[in-house]
Amino acid sequence: MEITFELGYALDTFYFLICGALVMWMAAGFTMLEAGLVRAKNTTEILTKNVSLYAISCIMYMICGYSIMYGGDDFSFFLKDITGDGVTGAEEPAGYAPSADFFFQVVFVATAMSIVSGAVAERMKLWAFLAFAVVLTAVIYPMSGSWTWGGADVFGMFNLGAPVPEDAAADWMPAFRFSDFAGSGIVHMAGAAAALAGVLVLGARKGKYGKDGKANAIPGANLPLATLGTFILWMGWFGFNGGSVLATASVDSANSVAVVFMNTNMAAAGGLVAALLLARILFGKADLTMALNGALAGLVAITAEPSTPTALQATLFGALGGALVVGSILALDKLKIDDPVGAISVHGTVGLLGLLLVPITNPLTVDVVAGETGGATFVGQLVGALTIFVWVFVTSLVVWLALKAIMGIRVSEEEEYDGVDISECGLEAYPDFTSGRS
Amino acid sequence: MEITFELGYALDTFYFLICGALVMWMAAGFTMLEAGLVRAKNTTEILTKNVSLYAISCIMYMICGYSIMYGGDDFSFFLKDITGDGVTGAEEPAGYAPSADFFFQVVFVATAMSIVSGAVAERMKLWAFLAFAVVLTAVIYPMSGSWTWGGADVFGMFNLGAPVPEDAAADWMPAFRFSDFAGSGIVHMAGAAAALAGVLVLGARKGKYGKDGKANAIPGANLPLATLGTFILWMGWFGFNGGSVLATASVDSANSVAVVFMNTNMAAAGGLVAALLLARILFGKADLTMALNGALAGLVAITAEPSTPTALQATLFGALGGALVVGSILALDKLKIDDPVGAISVHGTVGLLGLLLVPITNPLTVDVVAGETGGATFVGQLVGALTIFVWVFVTSLVVWLALKAIMGIRVSEEEEYDGVDISECGLEAYPDFTSGRS
Amino acid sequence: MEITFELGYALDTFYFLICGALVMWMAAGFTMLEAGLVRAKNTTEILTKNVSLYAISCIMYMICGYSIMYGGDDFSFFLKDITGDGVTGAEEPAGYAPSADFFFQVVFVATAMSIVSGAVAERMKLWAFLAFAVVLTAVIYPMSGSWTWGGADVFGMFNLGAPVPEDAAADWMPAFRFSDFAGSGIVHMAGAAAALAGVLVLGARKGKYGKDGKANAIPGANLPLATLGTFILWMGWFGFNGGSVLATASVDSANSVAVVFMNTNMAAAGGLVAALLLARILFGKADLTMALNGALAGLVAITAEPSTPTALQATLFGALGGALVVGSILALDKLKIDDPVGAISVHGTVGLLGLLLVPITNPLTVDVVAGETGGATFVGQLVGALTIFVWVFVTSLVVWLALKAIMGIRVSEEEEYDGVDISECGLEAYPDFTSGRS
Repeated sequence: MEITFELGYALDTFYFLICGALVMWMAAGFTMLEAGLVRAKNTTEILTKNVSLYAISCIMYMICGYSIMYGGDDFSFFLKDITGDGVTGAEEPAGYAPSADFFFQVVFVATAMSIVSGAVAERMKLWAFLAFAVVLTAVIYPMSGSWTWGGADVFGMFNLGAPVPEDAAADWMPAFRFSDFAGSGIVHMAGAAAALAGVLVLGARKGKYGKDGKANAIPGANLPLATLGTFILWMGWFGFNGGSVLATASVDSANSVAVVFMNTNMAAAGGLVAALLLARILFGKADLTMALNGALAGLVAITAEPSTPTALQATLFGALGGALVVGSILALDKLKIDDPVGAISVHGTVGLLGLLLVPITNPLTVDVVAGETGGATFVGQLVGALTIFVWVFVTSLVVWLALKAIMGIRVSEEEEYDGVDISECGLEAYPDFTSGRS
Repeated sequence: MEITFELGYALDTFYFLICGALVMWMAAGFTMLEAGLVRAKNTTEILTKNVSLYAISCIMYMICGYSIMYGGDDFSFFLKDITGDGVTGAEEPAGYAPSADFFFQVVFVATAMSIVSGAVAERMKLWAFLAFAVVLTAVIYPMSGSWTWGGADVFGMFNLGAPVPEDAAADWMPAFRFSDFAGSGIVHMAGAAAALAGVLVLGARKGKYGKDGKANAIPGANLPLATLGTFILWMGWFGFNGGSVLATASVDSANSVAVVFMNTNMAAAGGLVAALLLARILFGKADLTMALNGALAGLVAITAEPSTPTALQATLFGALGGALVVGSILALDKLKIDDPVGAISVHGTVGLLGLLLVPITNPLTVDVVAGETGGATFVGQLVGALTIFVWVFVTSLVVWLALKAIMGIRVSEEEEYDGVDISECGLEAYPDFTSGRS
Repeated sequence: MEITFELGYALDTFYFLICGALVMWMAAGFTMLEAGLVRAKNTTEILTKNVSLYAISCIMYMICGYSIMYGGDDFSFFLKDITGDGVTGAEEPAGYAPSADFFFQVVFVATAMSIVSGAVAERMKLWAFLAFAVVLTAVIYPMSGSWTWGGADVFGMFNLGAPVPEDAAADWMPAFRFSDFAGSGIVHMAGAAAALAGVLVLGARKGKYGKDGKANAIPGANLPLATLGTFILWMGWFGFNGGSVLATASVDSANSVAVVFMNTNMAAAGGLVAALLLARILFGKADLTMALNGALAGLVAITAEPSTPTALQATLFGALGGALVVGSILALDKLKIDDPVGAISVHGTVGLLGLLLVPITNPLTVDVVAGETGGATFVGQLVGALTIFVWVFVTSLVVWLALKAIMGIRVSEEEEYDGVDISECGLEAYPDFTSGRS
């Protein structure tokens, strides 16, 4: 092999691994965020849920998720030895190690699943949750992933590979085209759809909504943890979006990765400031949890297309996300959809926004001569979003209902009152401090 | 383009982005450090301040800071599309993506601003602080940055670009020359100067100094957080100093980056041990917060020149910083300058030390034949330090005084007694734990 | 120099530095893990111990440890200027910066020492512990490291460099051969051996074992911290194992690094799930601390050979480690060996398991023609494990006993009852929260 090919292969592989490590780090971010936003008495359980779902995600994605999403007809990934390289014998040699690809993809599925755990916090049975994690990461997420990133566009909804007809005129346009760079829809909105289904089956926490219908604030026990979690997610998102360029060993791809890092950061900044100011206007205070959710919303909003906006556009898109998330959290409370950490708003509502923003900076392009299409249309984004949402929401609903029938998904009222830590885990999270507040 | 050029460009860009991500991570470090060192009742506010200042720094630096510091005559950075590369059309093609450069620089300005937040903790109004952040990151820091790193040596104070006169004799020497590799002065001492101005305008916390003039210890509420913050800063500093080599894709630059990583680590280790031992001698105990500040002091001390010392020299320079910070903290308390986290000592006093250490391992060099100068002189370092300090301190003082006149910068006595969390943020940081200690 | 050589050198150096930064980050992981698993009253002291031991490790390894382990006859590393490159003048030019090698190695010795601090928590004198850290990192660890990774196989126990005899028949086999890729034995079991010696000299915490011999649970004060620590360790382990490939700038080495990242992650996932399920069966609850130790055990188990297993094998090896650690923790409690954080089980028992698993996927290979041997035998692994254990355990025991005689290693009963934070550090870790529980 040429030494320059080897160096490019090595650099792309290393880049993938570092980005993957950063996405893995997001699992810690979700864990800290959620542990900070629940009450002390439910902390051990949400910690246990988060570390366990990460491990389960990795194992189920290895066993069948990765094969379903990217394997084509081959469902035996986990029996294979992929310690070799993807170079020799292949017609199109891979530009990076196949195991690096698996490593990067496996941490994505864990991100999708992490979104669910916060929304169902403080009242769900641990083992029912973990059973759901098995199904989502083994089948539900990989299936819709295979239609989009996997390229198996079975419904013709995504038109990713739709060839330009040979007799196309210069002004031929496909009906729609879907694009989701790093997963505003495929990962974040998918996770939120599964969370929404769970929350609807589960119901609100006791005491969250008064008889008059007003939502009672249930403050989180440890805001430094929630802040740390947000910073971890912010940092990890550089890998999440940056790694989704899928290559870095050329001037073009390196520029793209750099733009993605810059825009990811600016969108988070824009989201934070927008949410902070909007909350100031609405509530008269500097609301830290809204600011944190604003930053995360900015990140979700830019995730569908971080490579084409300018820094200013990225900031504004993030700010839109940050403003939207405040409204969405208030609206869900009006609807009595109880999401203790705001995950459905951050990842679902804003995930949809992210998809719809794509055509502004990355509109549909058709190159009749080369026979290639690119970019996205609003209709394509809407249809794609709907497809993902319906698939994940309906299948998740079926699984939640089945789990409810089989093993029950909600703890007893007494257990909820005492906190799920004792009943589910047998351990308090802060035994030296808690004075028994409920 | 040559494929080897592409690979070098890609590697340098990736290196920049990873170093930038590590510096961004320092924002989390400052946040955890400061949140751990204040009392529980002031924690939400300092968290809010830190996440907000990071976002504001990014936005203001994009809008005008970056243009002021590096743009020459062009102040329209934020309207530009820098998604392209810096290669074609330029006479000297850039070795890395322009957006990677922006990303790396923008996280530096946030570091400077983070230094301020700790020093003014527990008594400052949140929105006045954020207003100050806008001015510092938009103008004050970028302006002195443009004189030094930006190369616009308007006062002739830094002699960075001073050419060797054509008729120079072999023993020609410039009067002075300033060098600050990664920002002991330009970032850290600058942040400390702004903090000092703020603290002087603001005054000490109630109860900090008794009527007899003795300083009362006000211990931080969460030492594990403070320790975590120190480790995060320690880790992030590898990107801060390591990225400041500005290239890594050659044997020379790679060696330089490696030496910088090694020395950064050793200086922190030296600083920690020196502070630990000195505090043991002075107070008879192993003082954790002094040890943490010692590690940070070691990091600040090496930042002005991490690439030329040996590992042993770096350790000793760090140890000097660690010892000095203990003395500085005690001295500031004697002067009744109330800095709850020791930021002025760590970043200001030791930042100056760092500048003055440069000529020891990187003395002035003059190459008359090539017409180049390098290194630094003590006088040059002193004049440069003074210039930066005076600029930042005086402008900051003006801004603090203006904010005091316009909106007030200090919370009321009752709010300070109750903690600023409730009055400024409407949220307690640890609602399940705090027993109402004040 | 060829530009392709320069690029490879630069990439390998950068890879080493990033992996080293990740291993340094493990110091934060151990600190958070241990701070979360002790009681509030002993938290400041364990934080102090952990930051100090990291700094001491770096300094002692610079002064003599690195020279002993890798210097051959040259013990003057710390006086040298290694800011140059390893290229010119050397017969075999180094593929990366020599200071990057030192940086990577120095963070390993800190890992070994971190293992000790958890096991002796809540009852040991701080300064005696730090004195022990000096000896372990200066001499004990570097000495056994020199026999294995350093290649100075003085006892002929490791047969690493044993040449194939010139007259060897095609079926010639060495008696045994030892292989420890990233240090299941050389780092983790070594640390555990030193910890075991310390615990035996020190004795159990007051109240840990009742008069009836039953072990009383002493829950940790801050489980979110312990969970964060585990995630940090999980992430840092990518650098620990991934960096141990020692090169990445070719297709072969890049593939190896990628496989190591993938397998490291899968082993942790397998270990977590196995420990979670086994604890569920044994105790009827989802035991978070067992799950965390299970993940760490999975990581330790794969560390001796992460490059040859498939993803499925790595998961199963990790699961074996996760199951074993639960049994080991229970067994040590039966033996009244009091290890507050389970470090001896995680790093010692499972470290041995890791060594013994190597020959399954990396068996002995002999190439008589090339005169090379590779892989490992069970006997070789057992002999190597025994050598390391005996060396570290015996020398550590001598040092602990000497320290006991000279300065005492255990705090007084009263100090233990009140918590070591006040007596050793003069600072409470959580002064605003603790209600005086003992």
